[in-house]
Amino acid sequence: AGELWRARWGDESQAGPMTTATSIMRVQQLLITQFDAIAGRHGLTFARYEALVLLAFSRGGQLSMGRIGERLMVHPTSATNIVQRLAAQGFVERVQNPKDRRGALAVITDTGRAAMEATTADLEAARFGLGMLGQDDQQALFSLLRGVRVAAGDFVDSADRPGS
Amino acid sequence: AGELWRARWGDESQAGPMTTATSIMRVQQLLITQFDAIAGRHGLTFARYEALVLLAFSRGGQLSMGRIGERLMVHPTSATNIVQRLAAQGFVERVQNPKDRRGALAVITDTGRAAMEATTADLEAARFGLGMLGQDDQQALFSLLRGVRVAAGDFVDSADRPGS
Repeated sequence: AGELWRARWGDESQAGPMTTATSIMRVQQLLITQFDAIAGRHGLTFARYEALVLLAFSRGGQLSMGRIGERLMVHPTSATNIVQRLAAQGFVERVQNPKDRRGALAVITDTGRAAMEATTADLEAARFGLGMLGQDDQQALFSLLRGVRVAAGDFVDSADRPGS
Repeated sequence: AGELWRARWGDESQAGPMTTATSIMRVQQLLITQFDAIAGRHGLTFARYEALVLLAFSRGGQLSMGRIGERLMVHPTSATNIVQRLAAQGFVERVQNPKDRRGALAVITDTGRAAMEATTADLEAARFGLGMLGQDDQQALFSLLRGVRVAAGDFVDSADRPGS
């Protein structure tokens, strides 16, 4: 839509942020399409892969539904759907949460770990869709995005709960 | 997940692309949350707002469902859902496509244009969530993202169909 915008209002004032925001959205779309295709080779979507990564790196390979939603920054309903799909595939098991009678914990299985590792290897081989950027550009892009995240308060959560 | 990654594998080799890709996803998530909230003030989501922008800048303020899906890069089913919601709100009308008996065209209404303009004004006031970046950083970010898009062939389509 950046082009449409400029066509109407020229290159002045607000064209920058609009164009840049549109680019971020578009690159995210390009990456997620590629990542979904790669995860699909292992029976996963990128969202389900991310849930497996999260579980694999959590203590005991397990997390509550609430925490999964928080960490993946998705709606609790989406977290539940993701875990249900993974459970149906045998990639996680659902067990009762000892700290919460009504809550469930998702636990990654050996099959789940294997699917996660295989997807990771393929994503690494594809250099996470960013192989066209040299090391310096990679770093520059990360730093600029970090500035946006810091301003949006995105790092408060991880600072509060290191290793959570 | 970049932090988890580094914790396990250290800062070497593939941490760059993974961390940068994660940052792109995260910034997109931060922006879309903000844009949805802004569009929400005018009864829209950002996706429906984008559809209205697209229609507003199209010849006669109208487009086929297929073209809307293509231009917004969403599944045809999503395009249909978006237009149905907009039609229910009176922001677009659905008319028969004179070139395709079975197809429909979406036409933006005056109310739709007003909602689009009001949302645009609020997004501009919010500097599209990127007001923390100075002009140079804005430009640098856009250029880096453009490199990713060019490598992914993202500009072929618009070059083929200027003004479409």
